[in-house]
Amino acid sequence: MTVFNWQQVVEKKRAATKAAVDAYLPAGILEKLPSEDVVDVSAFVKSLLTPSQLQLVEGELDHTLSLLRSGKISATDITKLYITNAAIAHQLCNAITEPNFDAAVARAAELDAYRLKNGPIGPLHGLPITLKDQFKVTGLDTTISYVSLAGKPATDQSALVDILESLGAIIIAKTTLPQSIMWCETESPMFGLTTNPRNRKYTPGGSTGGEAVLLLMGGSPLGWGTDIGGSVRIPSSMTGMVGFKPTSSRLPYANVEVSTDGQEHVPSAVGPMSTTVGGVVTAMKAVLSLDMSHHDPRCPPITWREERFQSVFGRKLRIGVLRDDGVVRPHPPIARALDAAVEKLRAAGHEIVEWDGEYIKQGVDVMDEYYRVDGGEDIRRAIEASGEPYLPRIKMLVEKAPALSVYEYWQVNKEKWDLRQKYLKKWNDAGIDFLLSPVTAHTAAPHRCFRWIGYTKFWNVMDYPAGTMCVDEVREEDKPTQEWKEYKPRNWLDEWNYNLYDHENMKGHKVELQIIGRRLEEEMTLGAMKRVEEIIKA
Amino acid sequence: MTVFNWQQVVEKKRAATKAAVDAYLPAGILEKLPSEDVVDVSAFVKSLLTPSQLQLVEGELDHTLSLLRSGKISATDITKLYITNAAIAHQLCNAITEPNFDAAVARAAELDAYRLKNGPIGPLHGLPITLKDQFKVTGLDTTISYVSLAGKPATDQSALVDILESLGAIIIAKTTLPQSIMWCETESPMFGLTTNPRNRKYTPGGSTGGEAVLLLMGGSPLGWGTDIGGSVRIPSSMTGMVGFKPTSSRLPYANVEVSTDGQEHVPSAVGPMSTTVGGVVTAMKAVLSLDMSHHDPRCPPITWREERFQSVFGRKLRIGVLRDDGVVRPHPPIARALDAAVEKLRAAGHEIVEWDGEYIKQGVDVMDEYYRVDGGEDIRRAIEASGEPYLPRIKMLVEKAPALSVYEYWQVNKEKWDLRQKYLKKWNDAGIDFLLSPVTAHTAAPHRCFRWIGYTKFWNVMDYPAGTMCVDEVREEDKPTQEWKEYKPRNWLDEWNYNLYDHENMKGHKVELQIIGRRLEEEMTLGAMKRVEEIIKA
Repeated sequence: MTVFNWQQVVEKKRAATKAAVDAYLPAGILEKLPSEDVVDVSAFVKSLLTPSQLQLVEGELDHTLSLLRSGKISATDITKLYITNAAIAHQLCNAITEPNFDAAVARAAELDAYRLKNGPIGPLHGLPITLKDQFKVTGLDTTISYVSLAGKPATDQSALVDILESLGAIIIAKTTLPQSIMWCETESPMFGLTTNPRNRKYTPGGSTGGEAVLLLMGGSPLGWGTDIGGSVRIPSSMTGMVGFKPTSSRLPYANVEVSTDGQEHVPSAVGPMSTTVGGVVTAMKAVLSLDMSHHDPRCPPITWREERFQSVFGRKLRIGVLRDDGVVRPHPPIARALDAAVEKLRAAGHEIVEWDGEYIKQGVDVMDEYYRVDGGEDIRRAIEASGEPYLPRIKMLVEKAPALSVYEYWQVNKEKWDLRQKYLKKWNDAGIDFLLSPVTAHTAAPHRCFRWIGYTKFWNVMDYPAGTMCVDEVREEDKPTQEWKEYKPRNWLDEWNYNLYDHENMKGHKVELQIIGRRLEEEMTLGAMKRVEEIIKA
Repeated sequence: MTVFNWQQVVEKKRAATKAAVDAYLPAGILEKLPSEDVVDVSAFVKSLLTPSQLQLVEGELDHTLSLLRSGKISATDITKLYITNAAIAHQLCNAITEPNFDAAVARAAELDAYRLKNGPIGPLHGLPITLKDQFKVTGLDTTISYVSLAGKPATDQSALVDILESLGAIIIAKTTLPQSIMWCETESPMFGLTTNPRNRKYTPGGSTGGEAVLLLMGGSPLGWGTDIGGSVRIPSSMTGMVGFKPTSSRLPYANVEVSTDGQEHVPSAVGPMSTTVGGVVTAMKAVLSLDMSHHDPRCPPITWREERFQSVFGRKLRIGVLRDDGVVRPHPPIARALDAAVEKLRAAGHEIVEWDGEYIKQGVDVMDEYYRVDGGEDIRRAIEASGEPYLPRIKMLVEKAPALSVYEYWQVNKEKWDLRQKYLKKWNDAGIDFLLSPVTAHTAAPHRCFRWIGYTKFWNVMDYPAGTMCVDEVREEDKPTQEWKEYKPRNWLDEWNYNLYDHENMKGHKVELQIIGRRLEEEMTLGAMKRVEEIIKA
């Protein structure tokens, strides 16, 4: 008779992941790895690549796909390249939960053969991709970092996984996320801590942290995550990648594992992450070439609307700019980068509308109220099923307050709808095309130091599409000014964030901005990201 | 000091309604009204009309609108005509809660003047309409039949009311609904019993019962109701009118009063009711000429898609036919009418797919589980705020069971999504264009005799658009056959329904069928209604 012991489950799980990853490590690589005291390992994987491999990994996804479709590169070669990169990246920052390497290589060979005979199978023909460990892939576990879910390989797949495979994508691995998913960093008793490649003492953000790590290090050209408070956008922002959170119903969530499943007050949204804005545009376009409403009853029957994407080009735009949400002041490099972006947009002839933080704190409060509605029962059951310890932040979440009654829950929901209605009016009255804002109040943070995520979370409460992109990096000129030094924080969150600013150590970290559009206007929002990028980089 | 007394509130409310209605009654009409023992009063109002008035009232909405736009009839004349008809109809069947006659006449005069100067103001220029008493109209109460909400005139309007007015509609009255809305007949301590004009001993159905009465008697050309289990479709079916329930998010619910507000597991849907299929098509088209997502954050940015409407014309259709949901067997005239419709469709070259009742009982059980989630607290608070007595069915609902916890509530919701996913697969696998089914298991019912509404309710659980239309009436040939007489009911609901069949008294009552389409495919569903109507009436 075996006695159930969570440590043994973890040991077994980690050993299985390690064995499957190690099998694809290049010979002798372990000896060449940077030592543990090297904090910045972001360039290591890429330093091992040939110039043409590097060009591929740093290039546009569209270009890669055209090479794959024409057969100028084979699915097998590119799949092996990304697998190798991912396996090495994993040694450095701990990003993979479920390697799918053998199956991916086999699938790549099938697709190569298929292409020779029939041409490319779909718009993503032969593209290796990665998935946050919430998506179900036949034969792999879907633990969402709960020990109690380990050792239960899926017998079916998430709708999105079926769709991506039908379009030609090859799933090479699933990636780390925090225990319960409900945290904006990436750590769990099962898989340990995922670190930021630019500074391993820093968090890559979360909850889709593993994806961001692989993207940054060349371990994946396209990842898929989920976002209920910033979980796609925050890790993108912490690593300099691009993340896009659509309206919650735009992409299929069917058969995706999630905690607090069954709640639909503020649903989590599936979204793509890539290394460039073009990458997420390509990903959204490919998936929305199909009618999602035939795959998931949550999705509206709206396929990709190219005219909405194009509608932000070739005309004067009216752009709202949120510089400060009134709760937590962004760090100097973010303020500077936003100023610079605004000046470039203005210089390009666009109209800027200053936008205040009205309703944001209230929206975040509503969301925090939601976090306690079930009294933590859903997460508690999943954690206690194995006896694994709680992460401290998750313990706090679960113990936050007693459950509400269903009637009280409905009252919170009424407040949410009231807020959404008011915000719609605010947007209509201002007549803006989209909104430009910080993603987070800091460009980087040491592990376990995230506190305020109002800049992302509010758009989940509103259920508006929002994307992040890299516009600059922390520079010498961002060192604290006298004004910054004398700043008196407004509240404990602001003070916490203020004290996080560490100019010396944060130098070189990327600065990201967020673009927000109207609900279900994914195409316009992506068009706006592309347009703003063009202007900023011109 | 005044002591609050619910009876006094009711007395005052009824007196105010009566005074405002009576002011528009033609002189001497009260003496001409059929006496109380006359059960069929459905033709009385129309018997008072001139031939041209009758032609207008029985004609197509599109025709009426073209006359209004061209000025061949004035908004004032048509508004007065419908007000008069509505006022008389109200004497016979008790359908109005809030007359808006003075304001409507004033508005009609404004619109007439506007048209002379500027042309028609919008696609519904000058059209008198009625609204279920859930919609807020400035200056009128919105009681949803709760005594506690009487005497509180609205200071703002429902989003849909603003939209309809901007399109040119004139609101002439608000109409009866049952206490709490959560019942499929129309009765309340505040407004009393609304009766069926074809047989006043019968119910007009509910909850949008007042609308159906006015439509049938020529008191309104277009009404707006809401439907969370059949509340638009059931009264349409009981009176021979046409009702259309869109997907819940398609039309704006913003600022509409409703009980169990804040729940979004199965949201109520706003929908139009008219005398013909063409009427509801015109209504949907007019409203969807605007982008509803700019008026209500629930709505997707999908304006009217004419190509989807047209997509069911000029080609062979694949039509699912649900003859029996497996729980309650439809009465003979419904079975006969459905058979006849199927034969005509088949003869016209269309393909018929027999459809079973799989998942329907389970879906209805999920919905019934939802009815108890808050332990009746929402309705109890609203009723007990005034001390008014409960309707027996509402008492049963409120006392059904203790509240669930939020966590348990989420589990019910997971079952709902699982069902929706399975049903989507069933639909995809069958590849049908739409589904044809009964609306109710009986064509008529005495007051307080409704029990089974699975034929409508299931489509709320699925959130699919569904419309009803009249295809026949109960005929001599529908008298019970030997097979019917020997039928052994499957369960108590089936037995109840079986015993309701009263061929003699139901003769002449209309037989309706229901057309159901995919989620958010309102245009295709309306197209299917039009197409089926053409074929059946050919």
